[in-house]
Amino acid sequence: MKLYCPEEECGIFGIFGHPEAANLTYLGLYALQHRGQESCGIVSSDGASLHAHKGMGLVADVFGNQEIFKQLPGEGAIGHVRYSTTGSSVIKNVQPIMVDYSRGSIAVAHNGNIVNAQIIKDELEAWGSIFQTTMDTEIIVHLLATSKTSSLLERIADALQRIRGAYCLLFQTETRMIAVRDPHGYRPLCLGKLGNAYVVASESCALDLIEAEFIREIEPGEIVEITKNGMTSHFPFKKVAPAPCIFEFVYFARPDSTIFGKNVYLVRKELGRQLAREFRIEADMVIPVPDSGVPAAMGYAEESGIPFELGLIRNHYVGRTFIEPQQAIRHFGVKIKLNPVRELIKGKRVIVIDDSIVRGTTSRKIVKMVRNAGASEVHVLISSPPTSYPCYYGIDTPNRKELISSSHTVDEIRRYITADSLGYLTPEGLTQAVGTENTSYCRACFTGDYPIKFPQLRPEPQLGLFEKES
Amino acid sequence: MKLYCPEEECGIFGIFGHPEAANLTYLGLYALQHRGQESCGIVSSDGASLHAHKGMGLVADVFGNQEIFKQLPGEGAIGHVRYSTTGSSVIKNVQPIMVDYSRGSIAVAHNGNIVNAQIIKDELEAWGSIFQTTMDTEIIVHLLATSKTSSLLERIADALQRIRGAYCLLFQTETRMIAVRDPHGYRPLCLGKLGNAYVVASESCALDLIEAEFIREIEPGEIVEITKNGMTSHFPFKKVAPAPCIFEFVYFARPDSTIFGKNVYLVRKELGRQLAREFRIEADMVIPVPDSGVPAAMGYAEESGIPFELGLIRNHYVGRTFIEPQQAIRHFGVKIKLNPVRELIKGKRVIVIDDSIVRGTTSRKIVKMVRNAGASEVHVLISSPPTSYPCYYGIDTPNRKELISSSHTVDEIRRYITADSLGYLTPEGLTQAVGTENTSYCRACFTGDYPIKFPQLRPEPQLGLFEKES
Amino acid sequence: MKLYCPEEECGIFGIFGHPEAANLTYLGLYALQHRGQESCGIVSSDGASLHAHKGMGLVADVFGNQEIFKQLPGEGAIGHVRYSTTGSSVIKNVQPIMVDYSRGSIAVAHNGNIVNAQIIKDELEAWGSIFQTTMDTEIIVHLLATSKTSSLLERIADALQRIRGAYCLLFQTETRMIAVRDPHGYRPLCLGKLGNAYVVASESCALDLIEAEFIREIEPGEIVEITKNGMTSHFPFKKVAPAPCIFEFVYFARPDSTIFGKNVYLVRKELGRQLAREFRIEADMVIPVPDSGVPAAMGYAEESGIPFELGLIRNHYVGRTFIEPQQAIRHFGVKIKLNPVRELIKGKRVIVIDDSIVRGTTSRKIVKMVRNAGASEVHVLISSPPTSYPCYYGIDTPNRKELISSSHTVDEIRRYITADSLGYLTPEGLTQAVGTENTSYCRACFTGDYPIKFPQLRPEPQLGLFEKES
Amino acid sequence: MKLYCPEEECGIFGIFGHPEAANLTYLGLYALQHRGQESCGIVSSDGASLHAHKGMGLVADVFGNQEIFKQLPGEGAIGHVRYSTTGSSVIKNVQPIMVDYSRGSIAVAHNGNIVNAQIIKDELEAWGSIFQTTMDTEIIVHLLATSKTSSLLERIADALQRIRGAYCLLFQTETRMIAVRDPHGYRPLCLGKLGNAYVVASESCALDLIEAEFIREIEPGEIVEITKNGMTSHFPFKKVAPAPCIFEFVYFARPDSTIFGKNVYLVRKELGRQLAREFRIEADMVIPVPDSGVPAAMGYAEESGIPFELGLIRNHYVGRTFIEPQQAIRHFGVKIKLNPVRELIKGKRVIVIDDSIVRGTTSRKIVKMVRNAGASEVHVLISSPPTSYPCYYGIDTPNRKELISSSHTVDEIRRYITADSLGYLTPEGLTQAVGTENTSYCRACFTGDYPIKFPQLRPEPQLGLFEKES
Repeated sequence: MKLYCPEEECGIFGIFGHPEAANLTYLGLYALQHRGQESCGIVSSDGASLHAHKGMGLVADVFGNQEIFKQLPGEGAIGHVRYSTTGSSVIKNVQPIMVDYSRGSIAVAHNGNIVNAQIIKDELEAWGSIFQTTMDTEIIVHLLATSKTSSLLERIADALQRIRGAYCLLFQTETRMIAVRDPHGYRPLCLGKLGNAYVVASESCALDLIEAEFIREIEPGEIVEITKNGMTSHFPFKKVAPAPCIFEFVYFARPDSTIFGKNVYLVRKELGRQLAREFRIEADMVIPVPDSGVPAAMGYAEESGIPFELGLIRNHYVGRTFIEPQQAIRHFGVKIKLNPVRELIKGKRVIVIDDSIVRGTTSRKIVKMVRNAGASEVHVLISSPPTSYPCYYGIDTPNRKELISSSHTVDEIRRYITADSLGYLTPEGLTQAVGTENTSYCRACFTGDYPIKFPQLRPEPQLGLFEKES
Repeated sequence: MKLYCPEEECGIFGIFGHPEAANLTYLGLYALQHRGQESCGIVSSDGASLHAHKGMGLVADVFGNQEIFKQLPGEGAIGHVRYSTTGSSVIKNVQPIMVDYSRGSIAVAHNGNIVNAQIIKDELEAWGSIFQTTMDTEIIVHLLATSKTSSLLERIADALQRIRGAYCLLFQTETRMIAVRDPHGYRPLCLGKLGNAYVVASESCALDLIEAEFIREIEPGEIVEITKNGMTSHFPFKKVAPAPCIFEFVYFARPDSTIFGKNVYLVRKELGRQLAREFRIEADMVIPVPDSGVPAAMGYAEESGIPFELGLIRNHYVGRTFIEPQQAIRHFGVKIKLNPVRELIKGKRVIVIDDSIVRGTTSRKIVKMVRNAGASEVHVLISSPPTSYPCYYGIDTPNRKELISSSHTVDEIRRYITADSLGYLTPEGLTQAVGTENTSYCRACFTGDYPIKFPQLRPEPQLGLFEKES
Repeated sequence: MKLYCPEEECGIFGIFGHPEAANLTYLGLYALQHRGQESCGIVSSDGASLHAHKGMGLVADVFGNQEIFKQLPGEGAIGHVRYSTTGSSVIKNVQPIMVDYSRGSIAVAHNGNIVNAQIIKDELEAWGSIFQTTMDTEIIVHLLATSKTSSLLERIADALQRIRGAYCLLFQTETRMIAVRDPHGYRPLCLGKLGNAYVVASESCALDLIEAEFIREIEPGEIVEITKNGMTSHFPFKKVAPAPCIFEFVYFARPDSTIFGKNVYLVRKELGRQLAREFRIEADMVIPVPDSGVPAAMGYAEESGIPFELGLIRNHYVGRTFIEPQQAIRHFGVKIKLNPVRELIKGKRVIVIDDSIVRGTTSRKIVKMVRNAGASEVHVLISSPPTSYPCYYGIDTPNRKELISSSHTVDEIRRYITADSLGYLTPEGLTQAVGTENTSYCRACFTGDYPIKFPQLRPEPQLGLFEKES
Repeated sequence: MKLYCPEEECGIFGIFGHPEAANLTYLGLYALQHRGQESCGIVSSDGASLHAHKGMGLVADVFGNQEIFKQLPGEGAIGHVRYSTTGSSVIKNVQPIMVDYSRGSIAVAHNGNIVNAQIIKDELEAWGSIFQTTMDTEIIVHLLATSKTSSLLERIADALQRIRGAYCLLFQTETRMIAVRDPHGYRPLCLGKLGNAYVVASESCALDLIEAEFIREIEPGEIVEITKNGMTSHFPFKKVAPAPCIFEFVYFARPDSTIFGKNVYLVRKELGRQLAREFRIEADMVIPVPDSGVPAAMGYAEESGIPFELGLIRNHYVGRTFIEPQQAIRHFGVKIKLNPVRELIKGKRVIVIDDSIVRGTTSRKIVKMVRNAGASEVHVLISSPPTSYPCYYGIDTPNRKELISSSHTVDEIRRYITADSLGYLTPEGLTQAVGTENTSYCRACFTGDYPIKFPQLRPEPQLGLFEKES
């Protein structure tokens, strides 16, 4: 089960110098689909002009036709997959954004969240700018177009000096591709090579699929420019302490990816082991909430010696819409996705492991479902700490209100989800499991200690909607 | 990875006596979607006439609209999900079939395969019958309509006396629902209750979703008639030895289902344990081919003490079509679905566990992919025996030709898939793992010992298409 | 405005002996689209087997893809366009019907209506036949399949001996095409040639589009068989008096077609001239209800000397659905299709000419619209007589109830539609205008004199729904 | 047949002060569909914010769902229908354009063509503006947003001072609707009232459909502002001589509309009468190319005394795509739309009347088709003069190259289309027929006398593509 943190969930991919740039970008987006399922798009460059195809829906649907790729010629291409972000869910908000400005055409794909978007937008409008989307990303293009500097690299650096927040960016012009990771390095971005072509992707799993070689991660504050003449690296920003988002490990990234120097699957298993060190429970089996809870449950089982079992079976054919009967079915919603293995669970003491609790409604349904299947005890362990502070690099306050842990104690939550016991991984345990060798992660959402200081914090969110479904 | 055994893969569901019959049938089909993804349909009865909605595609797509259910009124409904069967893949072949005959309207949904279909069809045509579909199932309706007996039950029994093969059937008329399981009981079929309504489904997981109570399995050779006055049971056929298909346990059924008296997940784990008893291999980890190989791999790990790891990560967004780049990508096809966790596998001796090998091409790609990820040794274990004999209750000869084990030795296959070692579960091991307390399973496909004798066996299939993709 | 006489409105087309048979059939159906807009289909034969493509909607939509024609190979093809007929509007009822029977495969396309369908269906079901559509046409195939005669021609003749009613039929088998026109010749059917290929079509306008040469009309009671060896003609039925439907001239056929030996456009102008001889009205202009009323209005203007004007302009972009505002707009429905030329009509005495009145609601709206546009007088003339008797070769009793002329006097209708005067062409005038040189037309719907006698007439229909929209 | 003059062909409609604003705008666009079939859109205002729905295709398709109107709340709405314009045919170019700027949100719908678009775009980009569409219209919004004046009315006037060309504009903000017609009044725009609501539309036929009262035309150079407090009129531009486009009468507008003070149908008949005065031809009948040539043919017949006949019948079901057979059919393309009435034409001297000739290919096909149908002579008369000069308020040079009259003499064209004679209406005849009481029309396209002077005329276009189809 995933924490609702929508604007973080984007994936970007680009390749420069390959005759099948658009097709490989499509494959790259395919591998990054878990980072955004709402819409997607690709912009290619044939050296003289840019070409775009975008749409609402999954990559396989939006690009499900060979003909589309004939309309995306050229050796450079960037792409984007997007979940609901700060802009609303309409076709005009699908990325990459493509515009004409004084130096020609430029397209941009953005993964992240801009903290001072409204302030800059107001300024730009006061100067006469018009906005045609409701995406933060449009601001970056305006800043770039109004920059008084001359080269594109300078314009980009100039524009981004104004921006505060989290961003990984891919720019595509007629003749070059430029990748940027913000100075704090909140989001992952890696660099690869496929023959002579350079590849940039949110996660390394996208390199794997197209068989590109993993070179290295793009560093925090780095701008990489790729042209026909090769790659150059630039560090125009003031150096600040890196603060990669630790939640990429907990649930954003794919387990087969390597981000921030570590493999995600191995980290997740370690989170489970750490949970076992923190919470020793007498139980007959450990079962994950599939699929995201699986590695942590395996780690817990290994460390504790309690058997790992697949006690909840997932239906792989869950569609977007679902016609409910009028007669209430208990735990409907969860039932559509998960069904317990009754013969396994009956009469047993069960530990259920998940990666997070959002509103608590889903966890409550799962606990009740496991208990209805005959479990004598149901203990819930979460492989991340409760998030009590707002994320200014992501979560909107309205959504935040729905986070049960922002306004309830662990015991209140335990009672709400009707578990026999409930345990969250400690912040220290999380840090220790991830390892702090090289990097100090951003853990603001559960510590309140923000990498970027704000003059004025927004008012504390209130918990409201227990009855809503995750 | 699934054995290609298309015509077996159908699911049927029916409910009688519930005001939301069509909506609950839709949910039931949803839970049975793994048994057929090509097309689906529902026929409901409002007591006076039948109503149908059918279409190509997944249940969630064909029935993705509340309006459809207004056109499916009544307290009785039957439904069907279908993979490619003996009939070709066109809309006219979507089940349930609905016809008018002398006694009114009748609809039928069929899971199985009729062995003597062509002979009966020729006879019926000689008498003047016309056929509008290419489905075996249409034959049953013709036999029923031309039967000289009077009651519907008698007509059904009369018609089925002529039929040889595997079948689970659901009939819906204006006023009753009738369920039939063939005398050998090849396919599973269970009976449940939801309030006063009776429910029939291919697998118990469909009962779980709608919260119907599991009553019992329909017995081999049993005909169950359900009307407003309740349920009656009939056994009009000569008693024969039951022969349930053991492959339902290996890969057809969902792990959370109980069929032939046993839970599938627990049986699959036992298959893995049995594999461990038969094949002791020095290795660092056991990894499943997800998702179908997971329980067996867990069982193997438990029995052998070798750690269980998720070394292959599955992409959950795989669509129907896929646009390939012209530049070859190694193991394309498999790569779209699976990616190895390189950091985990590197330098390790790995046992890969799958439930079957079809043409061998996919297994070959997986072995090479795991080796490319750095494994020092790759051993493959299959949780079922090699299938060397044709299945007359399912597999078409053309498809059968593609089964590598029908014409190659285990060592030839090992060399083809480039594994360091390859082991199949023995037929005895399979039988022992499944347990033979109550039932003698049909194991004809790997023993050649058929429950139904044929006057003339079809010629032995030849292996051909190594290069085809599963 | 068209008289609602749905089951008559079908079009059929076939071609045999041409390498682009399916594509030319598509063009032929395109030219016959006015005879049925609900659904369409084509069945082609490649000499060994039949291939079908069918769908709901217009020809241009159902066949709007080059790929479809690759799936319709062969030198023979038949096609069908259909409005709502005796069967309901669902995909299973789309023609041509294609079945397997003892002699192979056969497809059939049917324009007409079978009077004794229910009786034969009951008999067939009693013998064990099953019906999978609700179309009359399926009966013909059953009769053919159960015929005890040997050759296909004999089977067809044998089957049709049982049938009473109106029919033009096209059969397609693997190796031949057979065209039939019923003994009374109710519906038109013509024969053409394109190179060596033979063509059959409901109207000659379909021959024109593909540049086939018009040979002659298929005669009443004639069966034409076309094979590789050429064409043969057969007259197996007892000779009866021909009775072509005079309403084909009034509104069914396209003006550029030649049917029953005459050009439709010229006949319609003559209907207008005859109207002028029967109704001399003092007026300033004659305006048609476009498009069907145009030729009659032109004829009236020529004969009377009163100027012809296009006083009602038609919107050519009228779609299937239309979202009405909640605030009532006067004459909505008609307004969507027609708008008066106010400057032309203002203060003028206007004669409005249409080809028929169905429920009267549309005529009422048109009269009021013209009066609102400033006309000082509005006279309505109809280029056909009032239809007071049921058509047993077409109209269903339920629809018939809605025919205002079946239960109201001309003056009652005039008052209802609020015209200053109303005139219908007399039956004698109609006959005279059409000409009776060769043929005695079926005029049963306004005389009650039926070509086929029935043992029992259905009860007289009642007028009900004044408020319904045509 | 229509002259290809794409960017002129737009229609706009707006209503302010009505609870069903969006639904009535939909109806208005429906009535204006002939002015643009490529795409359409509506933006509504609920007093606080704007709401949009746009799409490619016809109004009935894009808005074919009641649900859409729930997403378009409010008492103000503007809409747009569009043929291919200066921007290319993609969804991002569908109007109305909706943007945020310093004063809130604004939407704009535009009918016309901006002559100095590129110059202004370059300037705006130099200042840092970015362009997200390729439509001229976006320039207007940028100018408005960067204006240094304070009120919206002043901003609009300020922006339009920069613009040269043809434009009718509708602006919608949260609280007001503003309509503008350019100082020359090239395009029509009229004002109506429906209860207390004000309505603005390109043509009066849109007022008729929603039963709004026609008040008057918006005057050249007038800006009309409509708010809750009613309507105010402004004339901020320097007065220039009006120059309405005379081709609106010839073929753009609908015959039932009143534009530039005159009814279009009556003008078109007068064009035909004038043709008869200029070209006296011995012939047996006058036939129009339907539908646009009908009124002129009627006028010609009345003045000359030669009978008017519908010798070419139009197929009303012509779709967007059409699958051609490989075997050539003569005059394919035209044949799909038109078929001659052979019995009428055979052996007759025929005058064919059309409103224009574009590339000549269609006229050539029609002449040959009529001759093939048996006409002994085929004379062609065109109800407008040959257009030999580029239209800077519309036609792109690339398209212009295809205009046969821009580079060929009348006799060359006659020979190309194979007519026995060819006559174009004289410019003087056109002017006289239209009447010059109040207005001096823009006739630059056939006289070269432009209302707006250009420093540098583009090079004379060359005729190229005889073989292309209109």
